[in-house]
Amino acid sequence: MTAATAPDLLALDRAAQDLLFRAARTANTFTDEPVTDAQVAAIHDLIRYGPTAYNGQPLRVLVLRSAAARARLLPHLSSSNRAKTASAPLVAVLAADVDFHERLPELYPHRPQARDWLADRATRVEQARFSATLQIGYLLVGVRAAGLAAGPMAGFDAAGVTREFFPDGRHEALLVMNVGRPGPGSWQDRLPRLTTEDVVQTL
Amino acid sequence: MTAATAPDLLALDRAAQDLLFRAARTANTFTDEPVTDAQVAAIHDLIRYGPTAYNGQPLRVLVLRSAAARARLLPHLSSSNRAKTASAPLVAVLAADVDFHERLPELYPHRPQARDWLADRATRVEQARFSATLQIGYLLVGVRAAGLAAGPMAGFDAAGVTREFFPDGRHEALLVMNVGRPGPGSWQDRLPRLTTEDVVQTL
Repeated sequence: MTAATAPDLLALDRAAQDLLFRAARTANTFTDEPVTDAQVAAIHDLIRYGPTAYNGQPLRVLVLRSAAARARLLPHLSSSNRAKTASAPLVAVLAADVDFHERLPELYPHRPQARDWLADRATRVEQARFSATLQIGYLLVGVRAAGLAAGPMAGFDAAGVTREFFPDGRHEALLVMNVGRPGPGSWQDRLPRLTTEDVVQTL
Repeated sequence: MTAATAPDLLALDRAAQDLLFRAARTANTFTDEPVTDAQVAAIHDLIRYGPTAYNGQPLRVLVLRSAAARARLLPHLSSSNRAKTASAPLVAVLAADVDFHERLPELYPHRPQARDWLADRATRVEQARFSATLQIGYLLVGVRAAGLAAGPMAGFDAAGVTREFFPDGRHEALLVMNVGRPGPGSWQDRLPRLTTEDVVQTL
């Protein structure tokens, strides 16, 4: 199995493979073309079908559009992430709703008792973080499906962002993501990827 | 913004949207058509380009093909998940490599000191779980890109699976996923999804 033949074993056509994975890159600069609310809704409308445990869908997305909202975020980012975040057309704080279980009677109606399985907050935090992180994976694919580039950033103070934007105590910030059209000098060289031999083992 | 117009705002064509999200479903039964090693490699070759923190790529995939390996897994699954897992063409245990930092000098060569930022095991476990879970999101999309159905299962004893299959102490099992072509009666009714208004808030 070589990379040259792998694309042909997939049902997804090569242009879509390139759009979502092979040619897609993490953007570090952006043009000033806006990302509209309609685009955000279209992305969410696509990725909301991705599976989550108990169909709980704990991901919540806080879009920071105003200068004032952006200014509240910047101090919580590592210094190397501030300039690109200040200039990105759209910045989203991606968080898990720790009390997602409240909606399970509606979202998982065939087992309404699932809500009670999650009565313990620590269990719920773990489940909320896991499923919301899966959903962030789908969301990143969805941003690319809209022809946009995502700039997910690990370098931020998650506890600080949670306190600043979610003082209700029911959400946990997981990731900050810039979204837009890539600008000049947006790409670094593609970093190396592990091979199938590195990652997959068969018993 | 309605669901009827949302697909047209995306660059990804409608057939691909359906293949990956809109028509894709979690499978509960499978045909006996095999999932080949070449298909597994093609899926990994696609999704390995998805971004991870520090480009660390901590996801590891343990494919259980032999009856003996399958038998070691079944006792750790909830009873409702055993029959479908016993009969799925391919079962994968998806795990995070907690010592993924050892390869950062190769995978993140412009900042070789990143390895040292992750010297603390608790920090590393959190990072490994987060990035590997993002990668599971990409993997689920990749399985669908291969024209296959995924059956991710939350109902299993993660600590038990970790002890059984990763006694080295450097991996944590995150999810068990069945993969194959959907069989008769594979679908339940589509469960309700949250709306954009439920999930996205703008500041």
